[in-house]
Amino acid sequence: MSLAKTEKAFLEYLKEQNALREAITLIQWDLRTKIPKKGVEQRSEVVGYLSQKLHQMQVSNEIKGFIDELKGQTQDEVIQKSVLECEETYEKNRKIPEVEFKEYVMLQSKGEAVWQEAREKADFAMFQPYLEKLVDYNKKFANYWGYKENIYDALLNNYEPGVTVKTLDEVFPKVRKSLTALLEKIEASSVRPDTTLLSTYFPKDSQKALSVDILNRMGYDWDAGRLDDTIHPFEITVNLNDVRITTRYDEQDFRMAVFGIIHEAGHALYEQNIDKKLEGTPLASGTSMGIHESQSLFWENFLGRNKIFWESHYDLFKKYAPSHFNKIPLQDFYHAVNEVKPSFIRIEADELTYPLHIMVRYELEKALINSEIEVKDLPHLWNEKMGEYLGIKPTSDREGVLQDIHWAGGDFGYFPSYALGYMYAAQFEHKMREKVDIEKVIRSGDFSSIRNWMTDNIHQYGKMKKPLDILHDVTGEGLNPDYLVKYLTTKYQDIYQF
Amino acid sequence: MSLAKTEKAFLEYLKEQNALREAITLIQWDLRTKIPKKGVEQRSEVVGYLSQKLHQMQVSNEIKGFIDELKGQTQDEVIQKSVLECEETYEKNRKIPEVEFKEYVMLQSKGEAVWQEAREKADFAMFQPYLEKLVDYNKKFANYWGYKENIYDALLNNYEPGVTVKTLDEVFPKVRKSLTALLEKIEASSVRPDTTLLSTYFPKDSQKALSVDILNRMGYDWDAGRLDDTIHPFEITVNLNDVRITTRYDEQDFRMAVFGIIHEAGHALYEQNIDKKLEGTPLASGTSMGIHESQSLFWENFLGRNKIFWESHYDLFKKYAPSHFNKIPLQDFYHAVNEVKPSFIRIEADELTYPLHIMVRYELEKALINSEIEVKDLPHLWNEKMGEYLGIKPTSDREGVLQDIHWAGGDFGYFPSYALGYMYAAQFEHKMREKVDIEKVIRSGDFSSIRNWMTDNIHQYGKMKKPLDILHDVTGEGLNPDYLVKYLTTKYQDIYQF
Repeated sequence: MSLAKTEKAFLEYLKEQNALREAITLIQWDLRTKIPKKGVEQRSEVVGYLSQKLHQMQVSNEIKGFIDELKGQTQDEVIQKSVLECEETYEKNRKIPEVEFKEYVMLQSKGEAVWQEAREKADFAMFQPYLEKLVDYNKKFANYWGYKENIYDALLNNYEPGVTVKTLDEVFPKVRKSLTALLEKIEASSVRPDTTLLSTYFPKDSQKALSVDILNRMGYDWDAGRLDDTIHPFEITVNLNDVRITTRYDEQDFRMAVFGIIHEAGHALYEQNIDKKLEGTPLASGTSMGIHESQSLFWENFLGRNKIFWESHYDLFKKYAPSHFNKIPLQDFYHAVNEVKPSFIRIEADELTYPLHIMVRYELEKALINSEIEVKDLPHLWNEKMGEYLGIKPTSDREGVLQDIHWAGGDFGYFPSYALGYMYAAQFEHKMREKVDIEKVIRSGDFSSIRNWMTDNIHQYGKMKKPLDILHDVTGEGLNPDYLVKYLTTKYQDIYQF
Repeated sequence: MSLAKTEKAFLEYLKEQNALREAITLIQWDLRTKIPKKGVEQRSEVVGYLSQKLHQMQVSNEIKGFIDELKGQTQDEVIQKSVLECEETYEKNRKIPEVEFKEYVMLQSKGEAVWQEAREKADFAMFQPYLEKLVDYNKKFANYWGYKENIYDALLNNYEPGVTVKTLDEVFPKVRKSLTALLEKIEASSVRPDTTLLSTYFPKDSQKALSVDILNRMGYDWDAGRLDDTIHPFEITVNLNDVRITTRYDEQDFRMAVFGIIHEAGHALYEQNIDKKLEGTPLASGTSMGIHESQSLFWENFLGRNKIFWESHYDLFKKYAPSHFNKIPLQDFYHAVNEVKPSFIRIEADELTYPLHIMVRYELEKALINSEIEVKDLPHLWNEKMGEYLGIKPTSDREGVLQDIHWAGGDFGYFPSYALGYMYAAQFEHKMREKVDIEKVIRSGDFSSIRNWMTDNIHQYGKMKKPLDILHDVTGEGLNPDYLVKYLTTKYQDIYQF
């Protein structure tokens, strides 16, 4: 076959894979938002069948043939990068014996189900044997995949390619030290934000209308997306012109939905603004978990919890909010939505203590994968680390080691991305200032210059660039935690007056 | 392979087909209810790919192998009937040369798009060349498929297997004569229902709450279904435990949504109550368009427009309806929702004139397929027939020959099912009276005895029985229009006092 013909056949093959992926994605959205409960069982079979078909295509002799023929031969950059993506997936999957892969997939879904029950009952012992197997499989897989320095690097590579234990062990302690110091000052401060003043009946429809108004200013494209209710909020990309977000409403606390929607819309803006020429290839997606999180966190915190934002948008907020807020001065409101207070549950943590939650998990999973600790010791070690990093100790595993689903699904190496996302966001924000007068843009109520900067520098590339390449191309440097520390210091000095 | 092994492999193969079908069905539901508009183009490619895969499995050598090995050999009734279904699909598709099939599929989607524009512009000439090709293909296919007496029978067989031109030509004129006679009496009557009294602002949410209340009484299972908004309402079966309905609301006329929802729920009850052992086989579906329509029409008209129903449920209606209705006497209300008045648009027609609309279409498409008339003469002939059957003549093709999508999608042989559904419904209702005190059940407000009768006699079988077998097994006779005529006569004598 001529090169041009092979390229065409390869793109056709990718399109077929993509059709399966799109169908599976829509089914997953439906499973989490719309499906009637009795329909779930049969639907799970359908997902299983389609996923198996997709997996078969990813490890087929046909795809191997395309990789061999096209790698380094094609002049087309999109095809070349697609070939590399396919090769990575092919190699990663082929290195795992098929029987182990199947056992692992079953273990994952069993693990999640058992975890759910164990969490409800706060019964770690029940979950322990499953977690032990999941850890063992991950160690095995990491060895199949290979690594240079630390076995955990092989897992990190699944979520944040290029980032290693060496990097994290340099950066995380620095950040922790700074955050802990800040936390001490905050705890010593006489300023005490009163969050009870946020608690009032705020109807779901009004919360939604407020959020939609903010999303319009961010430039979320409603012709290429939609917003639905769910239990555990998420963003999901069915295709590049169908990027959906979801949320959950607490009518006594608007923060969950409003900040949650801004967060998910941050993810969605990334996906909506990927270059459409990548549609149908494996490059049509955010490049890594960490870069993705930089986008959601930027919008949620750097904009949504920003002082200028509330100075210029408190009136807008009051337009949708119950009259209760008319009596609440801007400063009290702003302080309340930025309260810092160590707490047990990661997803409810404030901006400052959140990275500390991540570090607890990172330290533990790194030690697990390196066989330095055992699964049975986790509850105890978790509580100790929480005491050490956040100054509080969970009294139940439900608010301790059992709170997150990640390990139950076998996702080791994922947690660091959340903290990396924060650092990336701060680095991007710093760089953005050279071109964009962020405060002026925020005051204007039209945030498109911010979004455009993100699109020009990050969104458009999809997976055409690896995360650290994007970071370097945009900022001229590697991972640097100083920007995050500086951002948090300035922000909380102002709020807590130290 | 042993018979048992072949059976197992066959069922596995059916499950894979079913997984594709379920994915396609969910995508279609999404396309018609939820998808953001920019996502449609890429999604259409996905449907195309998955449909092609499903089609390939339906005409594969593998399925042919299963058919040859299992037909007449298996002792399992479900497997045996599934084999026959697969054989029918296989033969039907294999008889059409692949190149013609592809051209036809493209022509269908092009035809629908052109029709949409032609209808808006009331420009038949624009649509004519496409319709000509669609008719030609259908004639060709009918010849490939074969028939005994009339070429149109080959098309009828796609929607109502067993029903022929011979049957229809016996039954339809009888019905038409009776309906026309009834219509004359109604037009001569001094009773003039006033439908303007139904027109008042009735909020969408209240219309929905009323409909949900009625559906609960019908026994629609919300754990195995849901109700969404759409433009052209439909029922869709994603799987037997996920049977969704949709509707459109007119806040100035509750009839569209309320009667529409009852209609779609009639379809849904059928699908929700198919024996679950058929899930994953091609038998897990209503047996024909006509039997399906018998269910939706039964609930919409025989129950929803029934005098006893309104006598016993007008208070319920008023609970949800605007206070405007408090002033309207039951009889005026009942007469208004049962007004008979010849009109141009089929889907807005009343219970009595509806079958006449179907007969206009049947006569024309039968003549087209038999090459007795030409496509270019359709607008003229349509208007003439409308004058003859309904006493009114459209002044524009938009309210004439261009109003329905069926022909644009190549669906010839489909229309008669609507009228057959009416007759089946009346036959079932007559038979039901032997076991169920229908009026008493309606008055009780819990319609489960009616639903149970339908499930025992019709629903449960899915495609295990052919439509005319069901009709015969249930009623002990073949198609008999007398019951419909009697039902309509009794009903309208009472209303119009003749």
